[in-house]
Amino acid sequence: MARWETGTRERLQAAALERFAEHGFDRTTVAEIATTAGLTERTFFRYFADKREVLFDGQDHFEQAFLDGLDGAPTAEPMALVRASLTGAAAFFPDERRPWARTRQAVISSHPGLQERELLKLSGLAVTLTGALRDRGMDAVTSALAAESTMTVFRTTFAAWIEDGQTRSFTELQDAVLDRLHTLVAPA
Amino acid sequence: MARWETGTRERLQAAALERFAEHGFDRTTVAEIATTAGLTERTFFRYFADKREVLFDGQDHFEQAFLDGLDGAPTAEPMALVRASLTGAAAFFPDERRPWARTRQAVISSHPGLQERELLKLSGLAVTLTGALRDRGMDAVTSALAAESTMTVFRTTFAAWIEDGQTRSFTELQDAVLDRLHTLVAPA
Repeated sequence: MARWETGTRERLQAAALERFAEHGFDRTTVAEIATTAGLTERTFFRYFADKREVLFDGQDHFEQAFLDGLDGAPTAEPMALVRASLTGAAAFFPDERRPWARTRQAVISSHPGLQERELLKLSGLAVTLTGALRDRGMDAVTSALAAESTMTVFRTTFAAWIEDGQTRSFTELQDAVLDRLHTLVAPA
Repeated sequence: MARWETGTRERLQAAALERFAEHGFDRTTVAEIATTAGLTERTFFRYFADKREVLFDGQDHFEQAFLDGLDGAPTAEPMALVRASLTGAAAFFPDERRPWARTRQAVISSHPGLQERELLKLSGLAVTLTGALRDRGMDAVTSALAAESTMTVFRTTFAAWIEDGQTRSFTELQDAVLDRLHTLVAPA
């Protein structure tokens, strides 16, 4: 994709998020998003099928981040695969992304339909991960537990990462959450 | 509730599940469910707001099973609370319930709207459990991890319990899944 196209997509996303946060998702129109971005509706629809897609664009890259992590795993030991996949996910959430992620989450949390879509997205990712772990020779129960535990650590980390005033990096928080999971499940 | 009322509810549920499984959820009408049960539509609506509610009736009791389990925990040690809550859940799934659970799951898996509702239900339960664990003095991160891990073990157990030909009890399967989680997160 040419550089100016990437810029246009990002302008539309920033404009949409601004309108959603200020006026609510339901009360924002595509025309308003386009105007806020200084672009036309027609341009909007070259990038997104509808206004909801602005919030869920990049889903493929998000899933791929977990899978890329798996590919970088040093061994096929189940917990090493969980850690590798989480390392991949963390790469998707650099500090620059935090303000966007915070606002996006606030918009989603205030709208049941968007919450459902987000749940479906994460549930689909758990299914994808379970399959990827099975492909690496893990049995059905362990791969389900490993994929779901990956999602548990991811979700808990994400919630902490977007908290008001949080400055620790995604990776740092995730390592701490993983340590906690270890302490929880395997008490000393 | 009087005994005859319980009987009527169960007849309607059995009739609905039979129709959903044979003809699909969308193509089944309340009139057909009532006829199959040998009852009137009016009677149906005394028990359920709509046909979807037939599948999600008992949600309060389902959640309560996890909470009752927590109340029976021997200590406030986090993993003891997870185990106690799962023991409570298992009480909700005696062997007699397995054929119903199998058919219900098949109906839900074949319908995206029902899947979303089921995801919302389980996600809501995780939030309820997180709150109940915090009320017992657990910190935010540990209570989120404990609640999500409870749901992970529950879902994985449930999937194994309803597999074709599966004869092991919910409790027995759940103990095995918990052992696997332990092995996964705390490798020897």
